[in-house]
Amino acid sequence: MNVTEYMHTLGQQARQASRAMARASSQDKNAALLAIAAEIESRRETLKQANANDMQRGRDNGLEAALLDRLELTDARIDTMVEGLHQVASLTDPVGEITDLSYRPSGIQVGKMRVPLGVIGIIYESRPNVTIEAASLCLKSGNAAILRGGSEAIDSNRALAECIRAGLQTAGLPAQAVQVVDTTDRAAVGALITMPDYVDVIVPRGGKGLIERISREAQVTVIKHLDGICHVYIDEFADLGKATNIAINAKTHRYGTCNTMETLLVHQAVAEQILPDLAAAYRALDVELRGCERTCTLLSHALAATEQDWDTEYLAPILSIAIVDDLDAAIDHINRHGSHHTDSIVTENYTLARRFLTEVDSSSVMVNASTRFADGFEYGLGAEIGISTDKIHARGPVGLEGLTSQKYVVLGNGEIRK
Amino acid sequence: MNVTEYMHTLGQQARQASRAMARASSQDKNAALLAIAAEIESRRETLKQANANDMQRGRDNGLEAALLDRLELTDARIDTMVEGLHQVASLTDPVGEITDLSYRPSGIQVGKMRVPLGVIGIIYESRPNVTIEAASLCLKSGNAAILRGGSEAIDSNRALAECIRAGLQTAGLPAQAVQVVDTTDRAAVGALITMPDYVDVIVPRGGKGLIERISREAQVTVIKHLDGICHVYIDEFADLGKATNIAINAKTHRYGTCNTMETLLVHQAVAEQILPDLAAAYRALDVELRGCERTCTLLSHALAATEQDWDTEYLAPILSIAIVDDLDAAIDHINRHGSHHTDSIVTENYTLARRFLTEVDSSSVMVNASTRFADGFEYGLGAEIGISTDKIHARGPVGLEGLTSQKYVVLGNGEIRK
Repeated sequence: MNVTEYMHTLGQQARQASRAMARASSQDKNAALLAIAAEIESRRETLKQANANDMQRGRDNGLEAALLDRLELTDARIDTMVEGLHQVASLTDPVGEITDLSYRPSGIQVGKMRVPLGVIGIIYESRPNVTIEAASLCLKSGNAAILRGGSEAIDSNRALAECIRAGLQTAGLPAQAVQVVDTTDRAAVGALITMPDYVDVIVPRGGKGLIERISREAQVTVIKHLDGICHVYIDEFADLGKATNIAINAKTHRYGTCNTMETLLVHQAVAEQILPDLAAAYRALDVELRGCERTCTLLSHALAATEQDWDTEYLAPILSIAIVDDLDAAIDHINRHGSHHTDSIVTENYTLARRFLTEVDSSSVMVNASTRFADGFEYGLGAEIGISTDKIHARGPVGLEGLTSQKYVVLGNGEIRK
Repeated sequence: MNVTEYMHTLGQQARQASRAMARASSQDKNAALLAIAAEIESRRETLKQANANDMQRGRDNGLEAALLDRLELTDARIDTMVEGLHQVASLTDPVGEITDLSYRPSGIQVGKMRVPLGVIGIIYESRPNVTIEAASLCLKSGNAAILRGGSEAIDSNRALAECIRAGLQTAGLPAQAVQVVDTTDRAAVGALITMPDYVDVIVPRGGKGLIERISREAQVTVIKHLDGICHVYIDEFADLGKATNIAINAKTHRYGTCNTMETLLVHQAVAEQILPDLAAAYRALDVELRGCERTCTLLSHALAATEQDWDTEYLAPILSIAIVDDLDAAIDHINRHGSHHTDSIVTENYTLARRFLTEVDSSSVMVNASTRFADGFEYGLGAEIGISTDKIHARGPVGLEGLTSQKYVVLGNGEIRK
């Protein structure tokens, strides 16, 4: 069987399993999640041995340290997977929820029922814990899943797949509801994204190159996250204490995350007052500053930003700073250079805050809060399969609800159309 | 300027206009809708003259009678367009609605705000009134639109475009918020569906061939409607009076609509009781019956259905009938042969009704109501841009809300991430 045939077989099995998953009770789905957690606990040593094989192969192949770190399944990480499964089990099941049921003049009652999407394909890289995260979210939302992890994690993922399969069977759910692609052949990805008969949505998690390629070639909807070029705008009417805290936190809390601020915008009226102290704080934390002309006049240590800086996601201790004339200039800068991910205004002015929320075209818009809050857990989704920078279907952090859709339900008493 | 360049220019202008539309007040958008209605009223003779040119050209080109009928702008149809504009103006504006705003443990308040999608491309065939319907829905939902009508309606559409442009300008909104493609070159469609930088969603309205081609080639999401193979299932516990009324109405109220029943499923326990009278009623209305083996034994006049019949959208006075063993068989038939559009069960049994609603995977699922109710107006959406048979983004009748998306809003008081 070649790779395409193999993937089609997985697809057919997933489609079949998705029907049973769609009507599975919350009770059964939760039982499966807890059973998977128990399997992981009881196979801890097997998992660590499988992971040790991946680590050894990675070292032999000269995998860089950062990737090796992401690949490793430590006891703490196994604990986190187990906790994650318990947490997803405790979330409210979105499936079957009926909303907006109201009577129409014809006598029929019309509402919406939340239903699973069907089959979700997830493509990710080295971290094997994504296997459990993705499986648990798909399972809880009543979907079947096909998981394609990185080839460097194949042994770990195989061992985790065993836990998932056993857990599903314990709960009486189809073992093929979650399938881990058991080949490192790269053609598997190409097949997975081009079988619309079997896969309803693709969620890629990984580098921008991977995601761009998948978006270009996929024949189904891709829930994707590209750049996170996030902004904080310190307005003329900002509380400068809040502004300083937020600007420091949004940049330095973590450098490598998509909701980290990459560009700070400051209203010209407060730039002189706030920027020198703020710059000193950044320098103390070894953050490199790249400023516009006006910023460089004010901050002697700032480098001159190029046009490209405004369009760059550094994912590093580097910050670009621009002084702007007013709110309009800030909004214009954000909508032009941002990635429609997360942007925050710091202001005490009601009208300007309201305008920022309305006019900034990003998946998360904030007033007086750090961009670092743009996250499924912080938003109360309970878990997150990714952050969407698209406008279609799901926008911003995607939790269980983003893996569902709504169908119409009509309750009648024999009504016919006149 | 070649067609691709021309379409890119339209796209750039639409993107630009979409920013102003996204922040336009409900008042201004409604004023534009009413101004367009007034323009249509005052240019009624000009419109009819332009349409007469299209009709003459159509007759000269041997356009078939049905298409000529759809092309014609009568006074009654012009009245309907004007009324439609008033109706859309009276609908609640979906843009800016904030829902689910609640506090999180960190202190931030998180909610969702409804926002326009951006630029909508609409591709349709001969009916010029779609120009006004589509323009009004896009405008009200804060989107910019690029409308590509049929070449046979080009003069009518040009004249309507003038009304729209004048109305937008009267209301102080950008004239380029709604642009009608002013070329009959077929390459315009190819360009429209492959410029993701300028167009966010495509809504094709027309024959299945058109829609399939667009779905295959589009580089953005397509809100599409393919087949409408709808079912009514008369259950063992049906009220046979309701069943008869619904079965007649769902098939014969109109033959050419997507929510018309194409296959009737009858539980074996009630087939003998209900089918002979029902068949007589259909025959009196000249509906051709094609039955399964058991049906043909019962109804001497029924033709034998082939496997293909179960997968066919007749759009004609033809009905296929299958007698099934039980609810499971009915659901299985519907999920296998249906088009996931609209399906209805007739039953007085609570548990079976609940199972049908949950397990039938269609955009509208009904109990004791005619499938003909699957319609934006009947559902209370106020208007409808189409019916989606997809699961992603919008499912079932798509009204103003389907042309919007939700972004997250975060209201804080200086919170930072710990």
